[in-house]
Amino acid sequence: MWIRNAWYVAAWAKQVTEGEPFARIYLDEPVVLYRTTDGAVTALEDRCCHRLAPLSRGRIEGDNLRCMYHGLMFDPSGACVEIPGETRIPEKYRVRRYPVVERQNVIWIWMGDEALADPGDIIDWPYLDDPAWPYEGGYLHYKSNYQLIVDNFLDFSHLPYVHEKTIGTASYAEQRPRITHTDFGLHIENTTDDTPPTPAFAPFGNFAGNVDRWSIYDFHIRGNCVVADFGMAPVGGGGHAGDRRNAIQFRHLSALTPETANTCHYHFAQPRDFGLDAEGLDRKVLDVVVKAFHEDKDIIEAQQIVIDLDRDAPMLPLEVDRALLHVRRQIDRMIAAETPVSVAAE
Amino acid sequence: MWIRNAWYVAAWAKQVTEGEPFARIYLDEPVVLYRTTDGAVTALEDRCCHRLAPLSRGRIEGDNLRCMYHGLMFDPSGACVEIPGETRIPEKYRVRRYPVVERQNVIWIWMGDEALADPGDIIDWPYLDDPAWPYEGGYLHYKSNYQLIVDNFLDFSHLPYVHEKTIGTASYAEQRPRITHTDFGLHIENTTDDTPPTPAFAPFGNFAGNVDRWSIYDFHIRGNCVVADFGMAPVGGGGHAGDRRNAIQFRHLSALTPETANTCHYHFAQPRDFGLDAEGLDRKVLDVVVKAFHEDKDIIEAQQIVIDLDRDAPMLPLEVDRALLHVRRQIDRMIAAETPVSVAAE
Amino acid sequence: MWIRNAWYVAAWAKQVTEGEPFARIYLDEPVVLYRTTDGAVTALEDRCCHRLAPLSRGRIEGDNLRCMYHGLMFDPSGACVEIPGETRIPEKYRVRRYPVVERQNVIWIWMGDEALADPGDIIDWPYLDDPAWPYEGGYLHYKSNYQLIVDNFLDFSHLPYVHEKTIGTASYAEQRPRITHTDFGLHIENTTDDTPPTPAFAPFGNFAGNVDRWSIYDFHIRGNCVVADFGMAPVGGGGHAGDRRNAIQFRHLSALTPETANTCHYHFAQPRDFGLDAEGLDRKVLDVVVKAFHEDKDIIEAQQIVIDLDRDAPMLPLEVDRALLHVRRQIDRMIAAETPVSVAAE
Ligand code: FES
Ligand code: FES
Ligand code: FES
Repeated sequence: MWIRNAWYVAAWAKQVTEGEPFARIYLDEPVVLYRTTDGAVTALEDRCCHRLAPLSRGRIEGDNLRCMYHGLMFDPSGACVEIPGETRIPEKYRVRRYPVVERQNVIWIWMGDEALADPGDIIDWPYLDDPAWPYEGGYLHYKSNYQLIVDNFLDFSHLPYVHEKTIGTASYAEQRPRITHTDFGLHIENTTDDTPPTPAFAPFGNFAGNVDRWSIYDFHIRGNCVVADFGMAPVGGGGHAGDRRNAIQFRHLSALTPETANTCHYHFAQPRDFGLDAEGLDRKVLDVVVKAFHEDKDIIEAQQIVIDLDRDAPMLPLEVDRALLHVRRQIDRMIAAETPVSVAAE
Repeated sequence: MWIRNAWYVAAWAKQVTEGEPFARIYLDEPVVLYRTTDGAVTALEDRCCHRLAPLSRGRIEGDNLRCMYHGLMFDPSGACVEIPGETRIPEKYRVRRYPVVERQNVIWIWMGDEALADPGDIIDWPYLDDPAWPYEGGYLHYKSNYQLIVDNFLDFSHLPYVHEKTIGTASYAEQRPRITHTDFGLHIENTTDDTPPTPAFAPFGNFAGNVDRWSIYDFHIRGNCVVADFGMAPVGGGGHAGDRRNAIQFRHLSALTPETANTCHYHFAQPRDFGLDAEGLDRKVLDVVVKAFHEDKDIIEAQQIVIDLDRDAPMLPLEVDRALLHVRRQIDRMIAAETPVSVAAE
Repeated sequence: MWIRNAWYVAAWAKQVTEGEPFARIYLDEPVVLYRTTDGAVTALEDRCCHRLAPLSRGRIEGDNLRCMYHGLMFDPSGACVEIPGETRIPEKYRVRRYPVVERQNVIWIWMGDEALADPGDIIDWPYLDDPAWPYEGGYLHYKSNYQLIVDNFLDFSHLPYVHEKTIGTASYAEQRPRITHTDFGLHIENTTDDTPPTPAFAPFGNFAGNVDRWSIYDFHIRGNCVVADFGMAPVGGGGHAGDRRNAIQFRHLSALTPETANTCHYHFAQPRDFGLDAEGLDRKVLDVVVKAFHEDKDIIEAQQIVIDLDRDAPMLPLEVDRALLHVRRQIDRMIAAETPVSVAAE
């Protein structure tokens, strides 16, 4: 269904505010995030071990979270540290604690085997936290399985059709991305020389005519993350490998965190290297991205509805699906290799 | 569940307009209708063979329909005729094509074994396309299984209760329709002499007192269609068999096309032979019919809810249910006699 | 799932008005209530034996209820007494009749084996019908299994958390209710001396300082009913056992009638012994109770959602859960001891 042993984007750091428990479902499990007195984020099972009330309806008291049904209090390790009216607290009174890491404005969560959680495996992406690369973080809630969106990430053939008027151009249909297998997933390079700029982003540049474009990106299988370097430059400047001073450059992160079998959290960011102080530009770029992403969302959610009508309808592969089929096979392999953490967690 | 080898009403011809794919589910299968350059209607499986996106989100290009996810193009036979970026198109890249016939303002579709589809089996009903019999076609979406509506067609005992104030009258309760088994289903005659006119249609005539009424109709099991001749005339004129010049006459078509196990498309038409040029009369007749049909829809949808509460509650038959029980048995027999077209299509 | 052999609150008497069938689902079964000419309430299966239309869409004719689909008429015993167009009425044409008792403004219903229905088992609670104890009856529709609400009845440990600002006070957390097992369920006594009045009800009294409070109540397992005597009095008056003249006293009834596995009817009343003629006071007390009850409803419905996410998550018992665990065991035992009435009724 999904890989458990992975760092998934849980939320934008700013979404988890002091004093307010933040509830979300990840991988079918209810989770509550909250900040302790030192500002650190804690993630606990959002299901009190007593009678299964959600802790996210509870109250933060110092570093602890109190269930506001009957008052059991849990510390950041998930251990119950107070049972009103009782003095002895048996060891088994605890909720699951999930490793979380807050870094570069993002909260990452590990839903799998805690022993394997290594913060060193989290993607280090400085653009998320660099004043030279401003952005506003975005979020979409998808009514589809995450895999349909992963497919979409890895398939460039949809660009001229789904995004005809936004981020796709006819020229994309004629070329093949260069795809390399890596230890984390795939490295993909897509460049086009001397073609019209992509309609959605053209207004951010001041191009007299055609441009050279590039889209260079890494797909990380664990965590379903895309990190990309893309942009356009006047023809003749050498494109991404040449002089980028007259280019407009973006960086991009898209991260999928499965919510349930048929729904998915989608966090994304698109830092840029121009117009750093321009009033409202963060939002303007976000709006353009959101518009293009809704084109994907519309077709993918419609695709999910068709799939649900007949779960046995086969998909026929194309040459252009190589990357996504490779990734689907890798995902299946990784899922098969995981040992279930516990019955309850499965 | 339902008969597949039958011509079902898919839509009113006017609903499928040039340049606009028209999406519907019939018998649990997603179907897209569109017009080719010669104006003919094509019906294809609304599920791209590539990755199952609905073709109804696609673009009509000449005679073909292009999937707007990754650009596969299908011709009216369902064959894939273009795969962007690929030159070879394997034979199996196709979607199912459904036989359709446009005739007399109606689009009929065949969801079963194509080899058995004979347009000669479509009901020939000239009133659908005769200036001497004007009407406006109607459509209702039912939240019930189609069989509950078929039952309702074949049961006259509900008229005085469900339609007390519209198309039912007390006199209906006292008589029995004359029912004949035919090769296509049933032929039913219902006549009442010298009773008050039916309230809903009385205003369309100018009757001083009682009338002779008739309702003569054929139920076609394949396609769930009723075609009827009904009306009223002043007493003494010989009713339907006599002089119809002082009568008001209607013809009626009701056709049920199952959508899913619990929902149904309902198309209907009620041509008349009077007030041919009267401004707004088409709509006025339609409104009266829709009002009466909502009386059925209300009780049938309520009945479906009760049935869903306990799928095992038995129905006890009455003498008046003979016709509908006969038809239910015939339907079951016909379904059992069908060979599944394919696994995917089942 | 639930006890069938029990008197459940079906409705407030005033809700079932003359001439109007009243439809509800109890224990997953559709029921229609209506009044016969003598004003008595009849409860029938809300599913016509003919073709399963709901009788609640029917018409009351004298003492009988006529199905408005095809006109079958049923008498208050559930027997079919008229089939339009037929003269013989076979014995099996009937719907189930449920014993009902209207008493003290409440309609009680017996969903189990009719042979065991003894009106003498209905809780006799004079406060429901005593001008000296005015109230306005309340109703809530819960989106949770009834057992989660029963749990809530029997667990006082939630008061200081869920009802922190309404009917709970910190002092409740420090004491233990005195619980006695009885033949009908549990008798529970809860008293606190010399503490601040409960915030929600304090405004109804005129207390200068602390009060003595009591909450003495019986939980009846069959029917899921709480009947209570509670109130507060100035410190030193002897509390509930002493002089109640300066006290404010309430009586309380809460009754849960399962609707489906995940929904429940909740009827409640809170008569008082003061302000008998005060304009609008019935509603004011009701509003305070409703507000406090919504605090329970919020957490319980949230708890149900968490439970539905993983039906296997275990609940860990606390010392304070003794009463509710005892009752859960009793309920299970009583359900196991019941013989299914009929296949249809199960
Ligand atoms: S459910 Fe959390 S304390 Fe009881
Ligand atoms: S899903 Fe239709 S072209 Fe890919
Ligand atoms: S369903 Fe009640 S009379 Fe037919």
